Amino acid sequence: MSTPDFDPRLYLVAGSDDVDHRGLDNIVRQAVEGGVTLFQLREKTLATGAFIEAARSLRDALRGTGVRLLINDRVDVALAANVDGVHIGQDDIAPRDARKLLGEEKLIGLTVRDADEISQAPIAALDYLSIGGVFPTASKNNTREPVGLDGLTRLASQARDACRLPVTAIAGISKDTARSVMDCGVDGIAVISSVCAQPDPASAAGALREIIDASLEGRQRQ
Amino acid sequence: MSTPDFDPRLYLVAGSDDVDHRGLDNIVRQAVEGGVTLFQLREKTLATGAFIEAARSLRDALRGTGVRLLINDRVDVALAANVDGVHIGQDDIAPRDARKLLGEEKLIGLTVRDADEISQAPIAALDYLSIGGVFPTASKNNTREPVGLDGLTRLASQARDACRLPVTAIAGISKDTARSVMDCGVDGIAVISSVCAQPDPASAAGALREIIDASLEGRQRQ
Repeated sequence: MSTPDFDPRLYLVAGSDDVDHRGLDNIVRQAVEGGVTLFQLREKTLATGAFIEAARSLRDALRGTGVRLLINDRVDVALAANVDGVHIGQDDIAPRDARKLLGEEKLIGLTVRDADEISQAPIAALDYLSIGGVFPTASKNNTREPVGLDGLTRLASQARDACRLPVTAIAGISKDTARSVMDCGVDGIAVISSVCAQPDPASAAGALREIIDASLEGRQRQ
Repeated sequence: MSTPDFDPRLYLVAGSDDVDHRGLDNIVRQAVEGGVTLFQLREKTLATGAFIEAARSLRDALRGTGVRLLINDRVDVALAANVDGVHIGQDDIAPRDARKLLGEEKLIGLTVRDADEISQAPIAALDYLSIGGVFPTASKNNTREPVGLDGLTRLASQARDACRLPVTAIAGISKDTARSVMDCGVDGIAVISSVCAQPDPASAAGALREIIDASLEGRQRQ
């Protein structure tokens, strides 16, 4: 029973709707070359068969890179494609149910949006927490108010008191805000369009990684 | 390794979008009292968490009735709610992948829409075939031409030559057409609105069962 290592520093979240004609595999491969450390496939409209095929294709594309592949919401897709785990939201399968189905060797991350969701998170079933949404975003239909930087600082601190899991932040984060977000005390940031929608995904990812790594180094020196 | 018994004669397919304020559990319970022998939960818009909850609730509602509960498409929901199996379409998970995830003791049904899909069906992974759509229907967005009664007769005969699996028919079947559909040589019929959308689901199911059972008895006497 050993959870696979994973690196939450620069976490790319994307699906076929988030990319143009260049294609998802291609953009993800470039993004990983540039510095993405973790990838989540999020598909909200694909049929299950096509979703599984996309997951298998990305699994092959990521082989040998060390970058883990997670599936948004769908434990069936994660199992059928034999990827590294799932990321689940509050409306998805309960984390303990996901753990039962996936076993101990897969990764499970959970989105938490407020103090209650952090305090109720079943920590023992989880590998990381993702706090969001930080800023307004067009990438997902969030009906909630973004937590903002002050909210993120407060929630990240609460998460650190509650557990030793890595904490990431998501929603609307760009290279202009990445440093401020990291300075809220998180271990990594998740992005969609700030990498996927850029003309050069590799350099976009590289620029973000520099900011993230500089923040983490600064923290270590303190 | 023993597949659970199941009775495909009157197969109700429904989800929360197919029922009114009376609620799904309530309507399914009445339909089973009236004569439904197999039930499939089909949810196309519910979040995964709510889908699992609905499956668990129906599992409890059906306990002791002998009526098996299948989930449309979603192996994750079937596993999390520990129901009797899944029904999959041609765009869903591949039947062999579903069998690997579900094990030998769960039921797996597959929709087949033409001769090619029957000849390519991985019979060893399956417990039944569902031929459709027979007639036009408002319950599902089918882009294909319905097979009609002649097509159903031909496809049912092909399925019988190919395997010993039970064969059901679906789409647009009502009490006015149930006898003609049964006479095409299938083992059961699947319905949605002909039971769910009726003022008295129990008597609607009862009327259909009489027609189905009379056809099967007639066939045995031949």
